[in-house]
Amino acid sequence: MGAKAYKEAGFFGEVRVAATSEETNFDRIPPCGPETFDPKSKYVHITSNNTIFGTQFPSFPKTGGAPLVVDMSSDIMSRPVDFDGVGLIYAGAQKNLGPAGLTLVLVRQSFLDAMNHKQAAILSYKKHLDADSRYNTPPTFGVYMLRNVLAWIKEEGGLTAMAERNESKAKLLYDAIDNSGGYYTGHAQKESRSLMNVPFRLPSEELEKKFLAEAAAKGLKQLAGHRSVGGLRASIYNAMPREGVQALCDFMAAFKKANG
Amino acid sequence: MGAKAYKEAGFFGEVRVAATSEETNFDRIPPCGPETFDPKSKYVHITSNNTIFGTQFPSFPKTGGAPLVVDMSSDIMSRPVDFDGVGLIYAGAQKNLGPAGLTLVLVRQSFLDAMNHKQAAILSYKKHLDADSRYNTPPTFGVYMLRNVLAWIKEEGGLTAMAERNESKAKLLYDAIDNSGGYYTGHAQKESRSLMNVPFRLPSEELEKKFLAEAAAKGLKQLAGHRSVGGLRASIYNAMPREGVQALCDFMAAFKKANG
Repeated sequence: MGAKAYKEAGFFGEVRVAATSEETNFDRIPPCGPETFDPKSKYVHITSNNTIFGTQFPSFPKTGGAPLVVDMSSDIMSRPVDFDGVGLIYAGAQKNLGPAGLTLVLVRQSFLDAMNHKQAAILSYKKHLDADSRYNTPPTFGVYMLRNVLAWIKEEGGLTAMAERNESKAKLLYDAIDNSGGYYTGHAQKESRSLMNVPFRLPSEELEKKFLAEAAAKGLKQLAGHRSVGGLRASIYNAMPREGVQALCDFMAAFKKANG
Repeated sequence: MGAKAYKEAGFFGEVRVAATSEETNFDRIPPCGPETFDPKSKYVHITSNNTIFGTQFPSFPKTGGAPLVVDMSSDIMSRPVDFDGVGLIYAGAQKNLGPAGLTLVLVRQSFLDAMNHKQAAILSYKKHLDADSRYNTPPTFGVYMLRNVLAWIKEEGGLTAMAERNESKAKLLYDAIDNSGGYYTGHAQKESRSLMNVPFRLPSEELEKKFLAEAAAKGLKQLAGHRSVGGLRASIYNAMPREGVQALCDFMAAFKKANG
């Protein structure tokens, strides 16, 4: 969504791409630090986790002054967050929070104060805040489900427990890839690997089709990669239990044995 | 919502109030016809049903050329609509369509073509249409419920049947008011009465409080009027069965007998 955030921001001001890994098909988080960003920028936008290419910021970058605006749609509530330097976080609910149709926004008061509020109310975070998040009729069912999901996260031990579980789940799957002797290959560079989305390839497209069909027959579904990357992709959000990842790893081993 | 539509439109162009009944506390649909509107207007906005004051356009006005934009949030699917002269209809789902968090938009191709599309994508109907209503992740649960509600309307006999039922329900309630010898008084003028929302008053605020409490005890709930009108308000949307309206009328008669 970084590309969309760039394009949309262009309607309201000047925009610059500070860092990208486009030339290597977005297979890594580009190196970035205070020297990468313009300290006079109103904000620096990042997407903390990329669902398509399976990359994730290990931690938020230091910008050297400009507040961070973070699209956390696909890794919100997956681990604790260091809010230092963050001006605003937004996240569509549909990955880790609840049903689609709801967006969570966290905004720092000083960042809110610096915004231009002279615009359509629906685009003004201040209007929404002033109306207690009820400027328009809220999506009540989604809000109710969000409440239940947050209660569940709390019961499970909060974000520290979520992070431990997610790291352990991702390790299972990345180990299955790394220990396959090159039969399975991950898209993302190791240091940029996502704990939420794991895209990987097989030796041929034929084998990938066979893998998808046989996996689906065993109840392992929704494993096709995004059309822009191809191959396979396992999404292992908060709601995916460790047992689900283990079942996929077992299937991967059996498939390699039969088709290696 | 007319006031909000007026305010928001001001961010994008010049706006004029062509007709209002503000001086009589919005108790009627102001007389309006081709002479009321500027034929060079890009559009004329109306709210077809006013939930707070209980007024409703008996039919859409003739504008003399400018396309109509109609907020039908509170009477969509309550009766057949004459699309002649309409450029766009929008309706939040939460009254007659399904759960909150979804908005239905019907737009005429020629009206769409005349729009300014150089703006934030989320505000561009063309962007949403080009993306098959999936520019952003759609509120899937709401869409599913909308499908079920539309199937129900079809089963019940469609909009003609809905209109008959709604007219019959509203007549029950307005008769109960009109035949109460002045004990109950409606807010809206007769020729502007809404078939969806019926605000009415009792002889005193004390009696209104008593009415609300005793009605709630009998399972007749959500009858308090909007704070800007006071008194009582019965909302009799598509989902309210005739039996529910009859129960209210019976209670009104009994209450008057005991407290008249």
